[in-house]
Amino acid sequence: MCHGVYIMDISDNTIKRICSIFGSLSAMEKRGVEFVSSKELAGYIGSTEYTVRKDISILGVTGYTRRGYEVSGLKKELECKLNLSKKKKACIVGLGRLGTALLDYEKFQEDGFEIVAGFDCSINRIERLNTHIEVFQISYLKDTIQQRSIELGIIAVPAKSAQEVADDLIEAGVKGILNFAPVKIGVPKHIIYLEMDFTNALRFIAARSSL
Amino acid sequence: MCHGVYIMDISDNTIKRICSIFGSLSAMEKRGVEFVSSKELAGYIGSTEYTVRKDISILGVTGYTRRGYEVSGLKKELECKLNLSKKKKACIVGLGRLGTALLDYEKFQEDGFEIVAGFDCSINRIERLNTHIEVFQISYLKDTIQQRSIELGIIAVPAKSAQEVADDLIEAGVKGILNFAPVKIGVPKHIIYLEMDFTNALRFIAARSSL
Repeated sequence: MCHGVYIMDISDNTIKRICSIFGSLSAMEKRGVEFVSSKELAGYIGSTEYTVRKDISILGVTGYTRRGYEVSGLKKELECKLNLSKKKKACIVGLGRLGTALLDYEKFQEDGFEIVAGFDCSINRIERLNTHIEVFQISYLKDTIQQRSIELGIIAVPAKSAQEVADDLIEAGVKGILNFAPVKIGVPKHIIYLEMDFTNALRFIAARSSL
Repeated sequence: MCHGVYIMDISDNTIKRICSIFGSLSAMEKRGVEFVSSKELAGYIGSTEYTVRKDISILGVTGYTRRGYEVSGLKKELECKLNLSKKKKACIVGLGRLGTALLDYEKFQEDGFEIVAGFDCSINRIERLNTHIEVFQISYLKDTIQQRSIELGIIAVPAKSAQEVADDLIEAGVKGILNFAPVKIGVPKHIIYLEMDFTNALRFIAARSSL
């Protein structure tokens, strides 16, 4: 039995790092690793030993031994603190190449997320799709999200439609949005929003490597 | 005429934020916006006004007026400081759905990156691909990268092949790697490495929205 923490008080950057730590622990557990030091964890997530220890202690997790953290124990604790033990339902809007790639992205299912629906505006495209996930015409978005209690929306439509899709997702009741469209979307404060900006990632690498 | 800064001294998080600021300025410039306040910029990149001002001043950029920063002037200065004015050549390895989606990702070309080659191990897949970018069988990786002076490698192969592909890219001479494969890759210190971890992004949203 574990007690969650009030994560509203923790900064976005800390939560992001803890999510990375969780991902690393997941991978280690699969490889059968039993113990991990804060130094190794820091190497995995590209941070410092001090920050890793601080992040973990912010969650009220203890249990650092001479052999390091016990991998599956720490993973279980973080899972509980971050409320990740329950499978989360998500949908994908926009079933072009990126959207269909995401539809079958192996890691989502492994890692506690269930893609329960896909949507596209083109009936032709929907009919031609070969996937085991149920796909719908976009006009069924609101009903499907409500009937299936979908909590997360993933946007993979072209930039020009992204805001409209986000508005529809929010109206339908999702709590969080992951946006792959190369455009900034405005959302109300209670919606958790994250962009996957591929260009920005490349830009970072280019700047950092001082090409 | 502008002078670059020695960005090795600046933290990764700062560089990431400055890249986001640059992306926002780019979008504003296209919409014809002339001035922007540090508060607006902070809203765009999800940071604070203070941090935005500090990040920009770290680069030695001045020019905050009563109307805010001049959008295209600031963009031009950041471009120079981050060394982004030269078009960077990149290649994509792995031409499944994600890889082909990236091959035609509209924003890369607009934003100073040129995808000059794609690689896949399957000749069948290469022959069936419909793209204006040149695609090659993976055995041509090293020669093509060297002949075309490709500096950035984008990995979109399955997890199990990602490390091998990264090793080949590094041996061929790329300076930076953007990894879309859902696995941690080890790289030498002089290589700039970034992962696009979709699951981690979803996990952050799930944790933050305390589903």
